[in-house]
Amino acid sequence: MLRKFVDLSADFRLKNPKEYEKWYGHKHECPELIEKFVYGIPELHREEMKKANYISGAGCLATSAILALYPLAKEGLIETEHIVVDSKVGSSASGSKADLADMHAERANVVRAYKPSFHRHTGEMEQELNFNGNRPVISFSPHAVDLVRGILSTCHVFLNKNLTEKDIWQVYRKYYSGEPFVRIVKEKDGIYRYPEPKLLTGTNYCDVGFERDENSNRLVVMSALDNLMKGASGQAVQAMNIISGFKETEGLEFFGLHPI
Amino acid sequence: MLRKFVDLSADFRLKNPKEYEKWYGHKHECPELIEKFVYGIPELHREEMKKANYISGAGCLATSAILALYPLAKEGLIETEHIVVDSKVGSSASGSKADLADMHAERANVVRAYKPSFHRHTGEMEQELNFNGNRPVISFSPHAVDLVRGILSTCHVFLNKNLTEKDIWQVYRKYYSGEPFVRIVKEKDGIYRYPEPKLLTGTNYCDVGFERDENSNRLVVMSALDNLMKGASGQAVQAMNIISGFKETEGLEFFGLHPI
Amino acid sequence: MLRKFVDLSADFRLKNPKEYEKWYGHKHECPELIEKFVYGIPELHREEMKKANYISGAGCLATSAILALYPLAKEGLIETEHIVVDSKVGSSASGSKADLADMHAERANVVRAYKPSFHRHTGEMEQELNFNGNRPVISFSPHAVDLVRGILSTCHVFLNKNLTEKDIWQVYRKYYSGEPFVRIVKEKDGIYRYPEPKLLTGTNYCDVGFERDENSNRLVVMSALDNLMKGASGQAVQAMNIISGFKETEGLEFFGLHPI
Amino acid sequence: MLRKFVDLSADFRLKNPKEYEKWYGHKHECPELIEKFVYGIPELHREEMKKANYISGAGCLATSAILALYPLAKEGLIETEHIVVDSKVGSSASGSKADLADMHAERANVVRAYKPSFHRHTGEMEQELNFNGNRPVISFSPHAVDLVRGILSTCHVFLNKNLTEKDIWQVYRKYYSGEPFVRIVKEKDGIYRYPEPKLLTGTNYCDVGFERDENSNRLVVMSALDNLMKGASGQAVQAMNIISGFKETEGLEFFGLHPI
Repeated sequence: MLRKFVDLSADFRLKNPKEYEKWYGHKHECPELIEKFVYGIPELHREEMKKANYISGAGCLATSAILALYPLAKEGLIETEHIVVDSKVGSSASGSKADLADMHAERANVVRAYKPSFHRHTGEMEQELNFNGNRPVISFSPHAVDLVRGILSTCHVFLNKNLTEKDIWQVYRKYYSGEPFVRIVKEKDGIYRYPEPKLLTGTNYCDVGFERDENSNRLVVMSALDNLMKGASGQAVQAMNIISGFKETEGLEFFGLHPI
Repeated sequence: MLRKFVDLSADFRLKNPKEYEKWYGHKHECPELIEKFVYGIPELHREEMKKANYISGAGCLATSAILALYPLAKEGLIETEHIVVDSKVGSSASGSKADLADMHAERANVVRAYKPSFHRHTGEMEQELNFNGNRPVISFSPHAVDLVRGILSTCHVFLNKNLTEKDIWQVYRKYYSGEPFVRIVKEKDGIYRYPEPKLLTGTNYCDVGFERDENSNRLVVMSALDNLMKGASGQAVQAMNIISGFKETEGLEFFGLHPI
Repeated sequence: MLRKFVDLSADFRLKNPKEYEKWYGHKHECPELIEKFVYGIPELHREEMKKANYISGAGCLATSAILALYPLAKEGLIETEHIVVDSKVGSSASGSKADLADMHAERANVVRAYKPSFHRHTGEMEQELNFNGNRPVISFSPHAVDLVRGILSTCHVFLNKNLTEKDIWQVYRKYYSGEPFVRIVKEKDGIYRYPEPKLLTGTNYCDVGFERDENSNRLVVMSALDNLMKGASGQAVQAMNIISGFKETEGLEFFGLHPI
Repeated sequence: MLRKFVDLSADFRLKNPKEYEKWYGHKHECPELIEKFVYGIPELHREEMKKANYISGAGCLATSAILALYPLAKEGLIETEHIVVDSKVGSSASGSKADLADMHAERANVVRAYKPSFHRHTGEMEQELNFNGNRPVISFSPHAVDLVRGILSTCHVFLNKNLTEKDIWQVYRKYYSGEPFVRIVKEKDGIYRYPEPKLLTGTNYCDVGFERDENSNRLVVMSALDNLMKGASGQAVQAMNIISGFKETEGLEFFGLHPI
């Protein structure tokens, strides 16, 4: 009997056992199985998934950064040595074990840089944004904020050629225009002009938006998602739909609530 | 009669009228008065303040970024073209006028990049961190988070020489060891290992901490303050104490509350 | 052409124009239309609704109190002079106009008794809980809490005969066992032992629970709902389904998200 | 050597060992010491405290209810069988042990009736509000809300004679006009018309306010305090000042922060 599954742990995300050792601090216990797994972001690996049986679910923070930067990295448009990913994340991302740092009295009203550098998800980001033999160095810092569900990743990147906002639109459209769960969000007015996790609670969307800094060659790319959906079980269902030959959006059509 | 005052507006923060026009979108109406004002961060301008009558209060976000980066910029230790300041700020920073974006139902549970680039405080930061003829380019993005008071600025900078954590300690100590309102915060364990605004509500402290990224030449510098205190009226009182010849900490000795 | 509609305003909730004047402070402008409207809680008026064209949507706070107390009032089990309804409500219940009291900085971290007595919804509650010629006097106080969506109404009532918890179960089951949107919630252990709005965001449920006070003849009845769903548009859709001959649960089958 | 202390536990709050057994579920282990303790609310027991060495700190919820109702109970103005105390409390009141119910993801956005009846503080309230041989029956229900520090107790009582708001003012003034830490709060307009814990974080005040219900003989009395100050250590310091012969307000003069 052929089994198909999505592994929600981090065990088979990194393809290179040395990278695993670097980020997790111990040797990989089962390196021979690694190559059987496809990294679990359908927007990057849909075709491989269709032929796969084993999927490794992607990290929630990693998913938000990878989807934000994938089109730019694939097209080779950014300086690979200066990629800053500054993420803000809700409390449901720390799991359901009771510990002091996650008690309401200590966790409410915080803006807490809990792992300013060398966070494990960095390895996934560098692996998945590695194109044209040009492995990027990701400067990643996640922050706990007073929120239950949701991630906003603000990616500060520096363009290596002079691109207008219109050029950048075209790049993002090229990769995401047919995607059911990635939306390009960029409004001229209103309260919600950029991606915002508040609008995505319970949905499987990853909203991506950007702004060209007129003061420098920086591009700010923002991506928002629900860490329990597109950042975990929602994306797992999406992957399972693909490897099972089901309609990719099956069970994932919740459109969200507002205000919340 | 000689008057002394601290101007809480942004009118006299920028020394160069062209910079004012760039960031505020209209000509400065009173350029002849600009030179009479001292920019209101005592840690950078204490000696000038002692002889001054007019102080221009500094912006809350600008204060947090400038105090985070001042020692590094003064010593010429960072790449000036790749300075990322990613700030998270509470709702009391948007003033007390009622508008839709600040209503509780729209502002609770948000992580909102409300001005991803070209925020006006960028001009102040670039002016005050401009040393040795090497004007930096600041890539600044502020975010609204679900908090009433407080700012955390995470500054991602790239070192232009190989410095250890110990080296960096020495640089920060050199500038801040005698300062009554800047504390270097860096703990090995516990919940509060880095600067955090939750601990600073009502106080005039700016807590600064840092972490050397082992994966790259990045240094992450974090600074936290209460935007209504060290970010506004507290710092104004501190400056007024200086120009008036009072004890600098007068009226500012509140130590804070926890948990809050 | 026969029109069917649900009026979301408060204009036709009160059957007695004198009551309208008492609670709203001015004469009713269209008393001749009042009798055409059915008060919009299906659990009390389903049969009338089936024959009606005009429904008056019920108040959000009123719905929570009426569903909590309806079985007890109908059966004549409580002292009608000592009915206390203490409600806690989120910010989305105050509408979408920007005013100072609803700004995040003033509305976060509050527990605010904003209308401790003579709230307009009291009139609806007294009307709908008036059985056997025994009009109750409702002592109602709503409180703003730091929450976007949701209401918890804690109803403190005094039993006029000695009833066990089992007796009370039977009373609630009699009225609500067949209801699609009212659930009796009462668990022996776990975090969510009583009704709680946190679990109901986006759903059309009204959860009702109770506890017999061993120290007195008090019964505490708690009811929770989402003020924008069962407290407003959700219940309006439910009523519209009934008057239109549709399946009553059509469009209302969202089960909720947790944690949120 | 004569020792003086304030016991912050609940061991010596109840004067009657049978009451202790009723509320705590086991026999008192040291009944012979009970009479040496004075119950720790200075507004009720200041004269006894001056001669005492042992003080039993009062419960946080109990303090709020007792200070709200003391003048009315002492004067015999309320129906003793129908006293409802509905309290809302922040997360710092549940102590600093990590448990699942207090994790941020489960505790944020809640309105949770965690002990709707038979809460232990009820015994203290009944003891301290027992005047003229007329022991009251307190119907007490505390609720967890999304707040770190603070309690609002809404007390719904029924007057046994016809009193105007002015009459009630006089009663409260009689007992509290000279008190340094009890303030009568009742404004005609503005956002903060009634007592509110948001204004009291870090202070030792208990703010008390009331509203006469025009629709019935109910009086709504609201009291707010910071559970870690007037509800615990602040009141302990106040008591210690008294038994030590210090100025009663020593160390307790913090006026609070706004907004917070």
